[in-house]
Amino acid sequence: MTITRAALEALDRDDPLAAFRALFTLPDGVVYLDGNSLGPLPVATPARLAAVVAQEWGQGLIRSWNDAGWIDMPARIGDKIGRLLGAPPGSVAVADSTSVNLFKLLGVALGLRPGRRIILSEQGNFPTDLYIAEGLAVLLGRDHALHVVERSDIAGAIDDDVAVVMLTHVNYRDGAMHDMRAITAAAHRAGALVLWDLAHSAGAVRVDLEASGVDLAVGCGYKFLNGGPGAPAFLFVAPRHQQSMRMPLTGWFGHAAPFAFEPGFRPAAGIAQAVVGTPPILSLAALEVGVDIALTAPMAAVRDKSLAQGTLFAELVAQECEGLGLRLASPGDPARRGSQVCFAHEQAYAVMRALIECRIVGDFRAPDILRFGITPLTLRYAELWDAVTVLRAVLTAGTWREPRFQVRMAVT
Amino acid sequence: MTITRAALEALDRDDPLAAFRALFTLPDGVVYLDGNSLGPLPVATPARLAAVVAQEWGQGLIRSWNDAGWIDMPARIGDKIGRLLGAPPGSVAVADSTSVNLFKLLGVALGLRPGRRIILSEQGNFPTDLYIAEGLAVLLGRDHALHVVERSDIAGAIDDDVAVVMLTHVNYRDGAMHDMRAITAAAHRAGALVLWDLAHSAGAVRVDLEASGVDLAVGCGYKFLNGGPGAPAFLFVAPRHQQSMRMPLTGWFGHAAPFAFEPGFRPAAGIAQAVVGTPPILSLAALEVGVDIALTAPMAAVRDKSLAQGTLFAELVAQECEGLGLRLASPGDPARRGSQVCFAHEQAYAVMRALIECRIVGDFRAPDILRFGITPLTLRYAELWDAVTVLRAVLTAGTWREPRFQVRMAVT
Repeated sequence: MTITRAALEALDRDDPLAAFRALFTLPDGVVYLDGNSLGPLPVATPARLAAVVAQEWGQGLIRSWNDAGWIDMPARIGDKIGRLLGAPPGSVAVADSTSVNLFKLLGVALGLRPGRRIILSEQGNFPTDLYIAEGLAVLLGRDHALHVVERSDIAGAIDDDVAVVMLTHVNYRDGAMHDMRAITAAAHRAGALVLWDLAHSAGAVRVDLEASGVDLAVGCGYKFLNGGPGAPAFLFVAPRHQQSMRMPLTGWFGHAAPFAFEPGFRPAAGIAQAVVGTPPILSLAALEVGVDIALTAPMAAVRDKSLAQGTLFAELVAQECEGLGLRLASPGDPARRGSQVCFAHEQAYAVMRALIECRIVGDFRAPDILRFGITPLTLRYAELWDAVTVLRAVLTAGTWREPRFQVRMAVT
Repeated sequence: MTITRAALEALDRDDPLAAFRALFTLPDGVVYLDGNSLGPLPVATPARLAAVVAQEWGQGLIRSWNDAGWIDMPARIGDKIGRLLGAPPGSVAVADSTSVNLFKLLGVALGLRPGRRIILSEQGNFPTDLYIAEGLAVLLGRDHALHVVERSDIAGAIDDDVAVVMLTHVNYRDGAMHDMRAITAAAHRAGALVLWDLAHSAGAVRVDLEASGVDLAVGCGYKFLNGGPGAPAFLFVAPRHQQSMRMPLTGWFGHAAPFAFEPGFRPAAGIAQAVVGTPPILSLAALEVGVDIALTAPMAAVRDKSLAQGTLFAELVAQECEGLGLRLASPGDPARRGSQVCFAHEQAYAVMRALIECRIVGDFRAPDILRFGITPLTLRYAELWDAVTVLRAVLTAGTWREPRFQVRMAVT
């Protein structure tokens, strides 16, 4: 059946999440399909940040660490994120960047599996995950090594030398989603731990860390959590590991009594140990606004809309852009896809540049991927039509062959 | 000669830095002597942050990484901080927290001195410095160890097993300042490196990293640089070490080509390698405002006023509070003191609580220290009078014996 703009408009009228769009600021005329790189600005963020700056910092000054609850923010926002992920209170903290948190938890994992040498990961994992693992292995210099295998070979590669299986749940490039529960179980059968990177999962797909038996996880605040550019990241340690874990980064904010200024490190109980240095309060305040919005959106509805929009987008591209050189690069099965739809095109970079010129904002991923993020809290069904219409026009007219100016690559 | 308020008011009238006070917001009626814990809010920060949020994030979205220069902020603000510290362009980056940066540079130092086992530090160093060093030594588990000695024993303890001497230039507790040049030279004579923590130095005292031959340094953005609560920190690596350094934290922002998404880590040239994960842009934007103000203040004038105010404060306390149980706990020689003046008192905690009640905001440091930070850009000479007047009243009346409510400890 042919998809029409009218049919998509009807879906918008019936959308149970339609009201969320008004909670975000988006530039006029832009179809934003890059919320998985940088989530849009919540309407409430500027006022919240202004209050933190003018009142809490400007007037409260140093006392705001206690009076305004700054000191509690890593744990408080961590617990909120935990609710999005099926993680119990006290198992998630907000701290540092995803990269630094990967380092911490890989260190924890190797400490919990002292007889094992290998960090196992996937060739197509997000590069920083691989870089951090490689860096830690070099630093330790005790036969530790990062092994990367093809996606399909992971389960078979978990042997008794693997300390931790480190994977990104939803692949940044093509949106393919791992079966978290199955891989976690396979790792546990082999005596290994799992460390899941939830950068493209938190706020976007259903995750139940506790029910899935996950050991360790990290994730990102600036994508589907809409926490702002470079928002602080989070990390999760299952309660069963918290007693025996040892963080490789031992800073004063992870000390049992930071303000006693004791000369020796005494780890705080639980996940608080994972906070290292003084947390960046302004960035944390912005993150909390985004997380609070995510908490009000029923995750089932978010996932349903994400899958519906992703599927419709792929169908619409098939309908409108046949013979124009696009190939679906994401899994066809929606259940195996995160919240993005990708197409390969041999001139993907130039095509994306032309789309962005026309205010259809997706992302390019080397070497040949057009990546379109689906953010159900803001994306309207009718915008899928507009995006595909422009995509067809760009591909048909070949405007991407005449770049009017140089656009450098965007981030994540 | 007796110090009078009129004499202090005259100094304010002649103060070449007097105009800087108007660049900062301070609560009415507060004498703020805690800028070495959290610097006050610059007047320009709210508008700058609002623009970053509403325009750069809200309207520019992902493109602001390039169009608004977000991607350049760690290097750009790093170079600005470098100008405050006598560090050449390309030797300072802004990244992470002071604690995380200590970890990175201790890792670099041990890598540059592979035959040596010891990180040498001072018993009274800021605890996070010791915790991080201890954590790294445990993680490496190759006979590496942290040795701490008394302040007076440092030079004598640098032997040929010491890889790096890690010291805080100005002590957080009593304000005592090390002779950076002499200790650096002593370390070099023994073949060791130095790593200076400039948390209480940057923006407060004269530092010339290049002329002092310093190898490595870290520092804090939220004290005298007025970058806001938990502002990102900075780190310095002397150009002569940049070719051979290896960061233990190897994230995608430290890669030579972050957006090529290469599977293997290839370090960026120079100090850029020290940036690990995606930097927190909102906190960076606030930091830059504070750093820009610091750059417009002649450091010689800042140091002159700091010393004059510190000395006057100590003299005024001697004049007004004799016999009231205070003992100067900072070095009497101003040249050996950073930008704070401390007094010991057996009920220091309760006294500071009472002072804060009366809007004289200093800080308490266990077990018995009243700490008063001198921030020459905002502190008026006449405020020294007001602070000491209240201090005398508190000590005389013993109001600190009747705490009206519980104030929890403040941060840093």
